[in-house]
Amino acid sequence: MKKKKILFYDTTLRDGSQMEGISLSLRDKLMIAKRLDRFGMHYLEGGWPGSNPKDMEFFRAIKKAGLRHARVAAFGSTRRPHVKVKDDPQLKALLDVGTKTVTIFGKSWNMHVRDVFKVSLKENLLMIYETVAYLKDKKIEVIYDAEHFFDGFRANPDYAIKSLQQAAKAGADNLSLCDTNGGTLPHEIRRAILRVKRAVKTPLGIHCHNDSELAVANSIQAVGEGCTLVQGTINGFGERCGNANLVSIIPNLQLKMGIQCFSPSKMKELTSLANYVAGICNMPLMNNQPFTGRSAFAHKGGVHINAMTKNARTYEHIEPKAVGNYRRFLVSELGGKTNIMIKARELELHFQKDSPESKKILTEIQRLEYEGYQFEAAEASFELLVQRLLGNVKPHFKLESVSVRTEEIGDNNPRSVADVKLTAKGEQHFESAEGDGPVNALDSALRKALRKAYPAIDEIHLTDYKVRVVNSEAGTAAKVRVFIEFQDKVKSWVTVGVHENIIEASWKALVEAIEYKLHKG
Amino acid sequence: MKKKKILFYDTTLRDGSQMEGISLSLRDKLMIAKRLDRFGMHYLEGGWPGSNPKDMEFFRAIKKAGLRHARVAAFGSTRRPHVKVKDDPQLKALLDVGTKTVTIFGKSWNMHVRDVFKVSLKENLLMIYETVAYLKDKKIEVIYDAEHFFDGFRANPDYAIKSLQQAAKAGADNLSLCDTNGGTLPHEIRRAILRVKRAVKTPLGIHCHNDSELAVANSIQAVGEGCTLVQGTINGFGERCGNANLVSIIPNLQLKMGIQCFSPSKMKELTSLANYVAGICNMPLMNNQPFTGRSAFAHKGGVHINAMTKNARTYEHIEPKAVGNYRRFLVSELGGKTNIMIKARELELHFQKDSPESKKILTEIQRLEYEGYQFEAAEASFELLVQRLLGNVKPHFKLESVSVRTEEIGDNNPRSVADVKLTAKGEQHFESAEGDGPVNALDSALRKALRKAYPAIDEIHLTDYKVRVVNSEAGTAAKVRVFIEFQDKVKSWVTVGVHENIIEASWKALVEAIEYKLHKG
Repeated sequence: MKKKKILFYDTTLRDGSQMEGISLSLRDKLMIAKRLDRFGMHYLEGGWPGSNPKDMEFFRAIKKAGLRHARVAAFGSTRRPHVKVKDDPQLKALLDVGTKTVTIFGKSWNMHVRDVFKVSLKENLLMIYETVAYLKDKKIEVIYDAEHFFDGFRANPDYAIKSLQQAAKAGADNLSLCDTNGGTLPHEIRRAILRVKRAVKTPLGIHCHNDSELAVANSIQAVGEGCTLVQGTINGFGERCGNANLVSIIPNLQLKMGIQCFSPSKMKELTSLANYVAGICNMPLMNNQPFTGRSAFAHKGGVHINAMTKNARTYEHIEPKAVGNYRRFLVSELGGKTNIMIKARELELHFQKDSPESKKILTEIQRLEYEGYQFEAAEASFELLVQRLLGNVKPHFKLESVSVRTEEIGDNNPRSVADVKLTAKGEQHFESAEGDGPVNALDSALRKALRKAYPAIDEIHLTDYKVRVVNSEAGTAAKVRVFIEFQDKVKSWVTVGVHENIIEASWKALVEAIEYKLHKG
Repeated sequence: MKKKKILFYDTTLRDGSQMEGISLSLRDKLMIAKRLDRFGMHYLEGGWPGSNPKDMEFFRAIKKAGLRHARVAAFGSTRRPHVKVKDDPQLKALLDVGTKTVTIFGKSWNMHVRDVFKVSLKENLLMIYETVAYLKDKKIEVIYDAEHFFDGFRANPDYAIKSLQQAAKAGADNLSLCDTNGGTLPHEIRRAILRVKRAVKTPLGIHCHNDSELAVANSIQAVGEGCTLVQGTINGFGERCGNANLVSIIPNLQLKMGIQCFSPSKMKELTSLANYVAGICNMPLMNNQPFTGRSAFAHKGGVHINAMTKNARTYEHIEPKAVGNYRRFLVSELGGKTNIMIKARELELHFQKDSPESKKILTEIQRLEYEGYQFEAAEASFELLVQRLLGNVKPHFKLESVSVRTEEIGDNNPRSVADVKLTAKGEQHFESAEGDGPVNALDSALRKALRKAYPAIDEIHLTDYKVRVVNSEAGTAAKVRVFIEFQDKVKSWVTVGVHENIIEASWKALVEAIEYKLHKG
């Protein structure tokens, strides 16, 4: 098994872009293609020239992009029923883009042939044979995608196999078996491939979808049974529940099954690759994405964290570094003292584990988390809390009175005005400010009132504001948790505030964020 | 295989709550427990009494909750090294909560015993035996969780098996094999279970994690090999990459493998169950979650949609209704006409698909969605919008002026006061009201002002309030999307409001909710 060379075929640009919420510009597609090429991806499916004018442009532009590794594949279907191959406009468009590799999808499922194509089973076989033969005649590498192969195999195995044999006989370089609807189970994948291997000798590929949450399992099962081409997308992007996730399949094959896919240094790019593609697609990379997500090696339970400090293998299935990811320890009520110590060490806060300070800090964090605070994402609030309990924070200002009002509500053009009175460096300041909303108004008024005493306050600005209702069923009387992110020229920091009143909760987070800036200088 | 009775063991409340970003209050835990019980879940793991005071409270409270199906399990570890079972305070806490089922985890992996416990392999075996025997002596049902079983089996199969045999000999009712680190592949699961079955006769369970994106595959593999207890969480919530996702495992077993798990009507609750638990956990339910996600049966590609209209099986692996989900066609990026028609039909709103009304409705919904509105969860707003465009809604009151102020901010005891002036049934009303926050104050003032004209307003109350910051497609200014839920004696309804100003957004949703009540009478 170890000697087998596996080729990866990325379809993020075609199948991936079918995901709800993804809409890729030509520029986006070129950026992803270049990044995948740099990674060493073997094939890039660029699009379907016959169906989408944007895809035509992509194929024109990619020729000039100077790719070094990846073969670019154009995607298209078998010829239309009852027309000659050379007269089919979709195939003409496919040839026009001039790729050395073409992927042709055809039907394996008798029901589909009957209900959608509405042609005879025989005509479908001819469509497959003639299309592949026509392209092979032009010396093009042909990957034949057997759409719905596993559904077809379930419904009528002989016909599904026959459809593959047509493509094989016509000279296809690879037969990729597609679980188009994502409904197939691993043992069915195995059984079908065993039969296929007896019927054809052409190299096989696999193309899975994740509708049963089994796309990765099905793909590695197929490789185990002898498929040598794996189709999928980065992060499993794709229609419905997505395609098979290449950034999970690759480490499973290489790090678990011992099948050499990419060099160790390329493997270390997987996390940044996943993030890069998610960024271009403007989709969040799920924190809990296996291998490459932000939480993939994040430890929260106290028992786990304690064990991890003794031997990292105890709660990590691989070295995070092997895929370019890293370990994190989260602060939470569920973590214990060890957890807090590790977090403190990360932030370079110094105190002893079994000192009275550490006990005081633990007690205070548990009390606040019980009230609805969460420090995992609010490291600035955590740091201030610890430093305060250690006696290292002096207050930079004293608040006298704060209020905010919103008027002219209900006409789409409300007015929010805040008043802030405070004392800083011995002087009293009173300022009012308007804003897009009450929090924006409070932020402006507070910074206006502090500007004279602390001019550095002008370097910072609010970049994110998140609200969560903690006990949502209690209605507006429930507690509200607010996270606020600020940024200066050098870094960004997040603070948290909790209260029944959303204004008070926001204000707490706001004041913490300003205090943090003044504390750090 | 069809006769086998599979039991499901939900650990959302313990393992699920270890997920980064989840922090469950006692109330949250009780709500999830009751919902899972109503669904028919066989076991509910409530928490670890020895490690967390909040978990103790849960076990006290759940006794009075009147659960009808679920057995509540308390979680704990084997006794500490070199102490007597009856002197172990963690086991004492476990017994104190008084559940009929206890789940004990112990070590199967020689490396873990050596590096973390730092005890002899022999002492670990004693710890397992004595702990299980002690609990069995007290007539408690004991599920033995063999932590790191598959890692242990890889490192030292004989010792891993021996550790299981200790629990079996001591009378454990079930031996659950844990892939604690989530690093095991399906074929390794199979091999290990085949060996275990030869060594013990106790019923087996499986507990998987998703670090290799294989938790669902590993779980169904284990059931195929004979495990009859499946541990997991709703939506796969859990530490790092999460636990095995029960809402995917259940339909795979029942709808694909023909193993009867729940009645068809319970199966239809899976989508609402997934959404409910996500809501309480305040985690987004991933759109692309298999079976239960919003996009799981959403079709975007033109070829797919065309085929779907001819035969739905062409691009759907199961009937969406079988799991309580539904089909969506994404004709554009926004709501399509078919989609809107389906929604309208659900709400019993009558108009023709290709009528001028339907065009007007589509245009207006697309405009609002572009601004950041979302009607999927806000059916009352959707219904009002459609009825308004059909000319079926007369306004019940006219607003004159609305404002709200929050004073004494910053001392944990702020004061929010709202003023509402409006005309209803020809009479002007002006009312002020205080509240826990600005929205609560606005709600009180509005209802006070309407009470005389519409006494029915006293029957309703606000039950949920959700805020999301959205970056609408229209521009860069961050918008706030507010969902508000109201309830009367008969039903509940959700409305939505969007604006840059959170007060204005909340007000829009609030007015809609009241209008809806008056409209429906």
